[in-house]
Amino acid sequence: MPGSAYAIRGISSIHQIALMRLEGDGMVGVPGIAMRLFGALARQSVSVILISQGSSEHSICFAVAPGDADRARAAVDGEFALERQAGIVDELVIEDGQSVIAAVGEEMRHRPGIAGRLFSVLGAHGVNVRAVAQGSSERNISLVVDQADEGRALNAIHDGFFRPRRRRVALALAGPGGVGGSLLEQIRDAAEALAAEDLEMRVVAVADSRRLLLDRGVRPPGVRPPGVRPPGGIDLGRWREELESAPTADRERLLAFLGERRGELRVFVDCTASPEVPGWYPEMLRHGIAVVAANKLGFAGPMSTFEDLRAAARHHRTPLLFEATVGAGLPVLRTLDGLRRTGHLIAGVDGVLSGTVNAVLDRLGPGEPFSRAVRWAYDRGLTEPDPYQDLSGGDVLRKLAILARLCGRTLEPAEIEVEPLLPPDPWSAMDLDSFWNALPQVDEAFERRRRQAAEAGARLRYVASLDARGARVVLDAVGPGHPAHGVTGADNLIAFTTQHYRDAPLVLRGPGAGREVTASGVFADVLEAAARLEARR
Amino acid sequence: MPGSAYAIRGISSIHQIALMRLEGDGMVGVPGIAMRLFGALARQSVSVILISQGSSEHSICFAVAPGDADRARAAVDGEFALERQAGIVDELVIEDGQSVIAAVGEEMRHRPGIAGRLFSVLGAHGVNVRAVAQGSSERNISLVVDQADEGRALNAIHDGFFRPRRRRVALALAGPGGVGGSLLEQIRDAAEALAAEDLEMRVVAVADSRRLLLDRGVRPPGVRPPGVRPPGGIDLGRWREELESAPTADRERLLAFLGERRGELRVFVDCTASPEVPGWYPEMLRHGIAVVAANKLGFAGPMSTFEDLRAAARHHRTPLLFEATVGAGLPVLRTLDGLRRTGHLIAGVDGVLSGTVNAVLDRLGPGEPFSRAVRWAYDRGLTEPDPYQDLSGGDVLRKLAILARLCGRTLEPAEIEVEPLLPPDPWSAMDLDSFWNALPQVDEAFERRRRQAAEAGARLRYVASLDARGARVVLDAVGPGHPAHGVTGADNLIAFTTQHYRDAPLVLRGPGAGREVTASGVFADVLEAAARLEARR
Repeated sequence: MPGSAYAIRGISSIHQIALMRLEGDGMVGVPGIAMRLFGALARQSVSVILISQGSSEHSICFAVAPGDADRARAAVDGEFALERQAGIVDELVIEDGQSVIAAVGEEMRHRPGIAGRLFSVLGAHGVNVRAVAQGSSERNISLVVDQADEGRALNAIHDGFFRPRRRRVALALAGPGGVGGSLLEQIRDAAEALAAEDLEMRVVAVADSRRLLLDRGVRPPGVRPPGVRPPGGIDLGRWREELESAPTADRERLLAFLGERRGELRVFVDCTASPEVPGWYPEMLRHGIAVVAANKLGFAGPMSTFEDLRAAARHHRTPLLFEATVGAGLPVLRTLDGLRRTGHLIAGVDGVLSGTVNAVLDRLGPGEPFSRAVRWAYDRGLTEPDPYQDLSGGDVLRKLAILARLCGRTLEPAEIEVEPLLPPDPWSAMDLDSFWNALPQVDEAFERRRRQAAEAGARLRYVASLDARGARVVLDAVGPGHPAHGVTGADNLIAFTTQHYRDAPLVLRGPGAGREVTASGVFADVLEAAARLEARR
Repeated sequence: MPGSAYAIRGISSIHQIALMRLEGDGMVGVPGIAMRLFGALARQSVSVILISQGSSEHSICFAVAPGDADRARAAVDGEFALERQAGIVDELVIEDGQSVIAAVGEEMRHRPGIAGRLFSVLGAHGVNVRAVAQGSSERNISLVVDQADEGRALNAIHDGFFRPRRRRVALALAGPGGVGGSLLEQIRDAAEALAAEDLEMRVVAVADSRRLLLDRGVRPPGVRPPGVRPPGGIDLGRWREELESAPTADRERLLAFLGERRGELRVFVDCTASPEVPGWYPEMLRHGIAVVAANKLGFAGPMSTFEDLRAAARHHRTPLLFEATVGAGLPVLRTLDGLRRTGHLIAGVDGVLSGTVNAVLDRLGPGEPFSRAVRWAYDRGLTEPDPYQDLSGGDVLRKLAILARLCGRTLEPAEIEVEPLLPPDPWSAMDLDSFWNALPQVDEAFERRRRQAAEAGARLRYVASLDARGARVVLDAVGPGHPAHGVTGADNLIAFTTQHYRDAPLVLRGPGAGREVTASGVFADVLEAAARLEARR
């Protein structure tokens, strides 16, 4: 809650206590039990550190110093021997190795929310509270925790109350290639600025298809002096070397590792193009680990897979974001989500979704036939290693499927009408040499279409669209009134028409491919996922 | 935390108890105190409902039935008479009118975070917990609260644990004119869809410059049956009539009213054009009430005002959002924020920030002189009532000031170089009739510039830009390579150039004015503010 930053004045702990519990059906409503219990303890000079008895429990719980534990047990056993025999009081339960943590503060009085933050902070760090006592003076709240959790609990309370709330993101990256590698660079460069807004971003795992590098940063026990943070996170200057010598990639090990870091905002990032990695998402979500994907395959395949993934995210209230799958770094899905949540009815989406294809089409002219434009793009690394992948329309189809589904449409990829720039037969089966040899055969057909378009004042654009009639991807001659007309180079464009954006659409435009901007879209999702995880706490 | 929806099995309460506290310096470390206390109570057949004694407190707290209170007091007074006289034990403190609430559940065992949610839920609803007891069996947690809070506490726990978490937004609107009125319509239309994601959006206050209408929806005491929500929120079908007969507008009354609604996510929306309303923001933020503004005046005036407002929002950790001040509903500031947070360095911003001016410039031609184009815009309601306001450049200056500041620049409005379409002398002082009469005098000059531009293949655009050299607004002849070239009609355009969007900028384009799209920008901010308020809980 705002303003409660220094709500407690101090924290103290008693490192070692024994927690004891006397319970039994015969205790309910019997006035003398507490008297006899504490009487017996007093006669053995046992000092009681903490007492707690809930209103509907058949038990009294108390804590004593370890040196008093045996005397306490003997005293209780003696006092309640008859009740034990009669089975109305159970054997005294003793739990060693416990600590008491007490938070003290005048300010706790009449300020609701402080106990809540205390417990939230502990819960977020996976600290289980075994017993609680807070008297009506409200100046003190005592918590019993496992001794093993004491350091963590003190740190957590310290951080939660005595310094501006610091959020820690633990990021696990699968696929440290072009986009993933850029992401790691951008995270490294942004670290300082994020820390200034109390967000600590640590990369704790990097996996490629062969190896898995895990952060084994030291996590010191006990209380650290304020301001001193434990080292942590993979060194982003050396991850490549370290990954080389890391053990074999293993999903289970990654999950177990992330499972241990409950106190952090955990985000799994998929920058692979693997058809398998999306199969990991449900398990991640189930563990409360957010998933951010640049990989389209989980969202553009069968509708049922898409729906299952979204349902898992909803069910586990854990973010699943995939902004970078459409328009790279352009905030396309975010904008669409904002429109839908504020009541816009999406009447249509028009887009140029392949920067590669647009760059090729934009070059066509009397002196630049199709085959040469494709080769130009290939030489500059704008195409996939197999350029047919760009010309088949498959990539645009996947992006349009994702957009359509986020517009609320239920549709299978096969329902999207796609006009490939080159038909699968014979192009899909060719090796690269045959491809380049055969490509000039289509130059004349493309030049004819280009000329016809130009004569009508139009331009050839590869347009993806969604409207009431359905979804399609076509090579179209678009006039100056069409939003796609002015898209040049390797830009993408997405235009949303809604009841409020009726006469003119809302348009996003910019580079739709490239490792840096794609990584930037992934990075934005990571920050969004962290914010949502925090809100779910 | 994810998955903990049904973490507790049941809630029970004991409506009336007396909470007692025995304290004193002489109690510390004296083993016999608890024995003697509970012995004395037992001899008087007083049944103890709850016991709590923290580790560092000099007190024992316990609860008894009201009928036992007198006997309990007599017993304690008798037992500790000597210590009282010696001043080492204080007089027994008795607080009547308390309730015990017990939450029970097997699942509480070993699940950190449940107590946290319990306290968070209570804190968020302003319920102060007087005493707590939770034994080490961890199946039960007992809370003592004021009897007056009992119903609220039970409701809050019920809602927090037995139904998907429901977030309640309480929205107060100042300025229910064109934009504000559209906002209320959009909220009404979106209510059902938002409720489906467990967000309940209530408009609880509407103020115009004269009157203040407050929601006095019934808030029933005690527990309501599950699923039945209290009616609440102003009837969005009748607010106009109700506002007519509402009392005089009064900021203090509005603040006091919002102050009572701490359990809700409170958002104050400024859709006025008033220079005074921004003066309310600091007080709102101080109370943890988020501020969403379509009103530019708080952000585009002196830099110190802008900085103070942002500092207040940061200090009180309360959202202050103003997306609709630039580009109406286009997600401009959001996108800029996303870029900056992900490490983009903003090298430049170019924009067409006045839809009105652009619509006028876009119409100019041999048969459409400037004066006629301005009149056309005026007749369609595209201009301000005084069209000079649009042509002075002041509106664009304010938007550019906001953009520049969000890019990290420290600058006063006077530092922005503005070329007005019409100079203040003599145009700013004219009444409307003189304005229309005089306007044709400038037609020739505008036509000359238009023709020169057209001959060079360029178009006249009113371009706002920010780069390393500074910020300026100029009437420019832009060629096809400039992002502003293709902006037609009343569209706005904003292009961001960064180290990653280097060769081609990231561009947003669409209608930059109009009540519906502006309201939609405000609405997006309201949802964002609610999400951030929730994360701050």
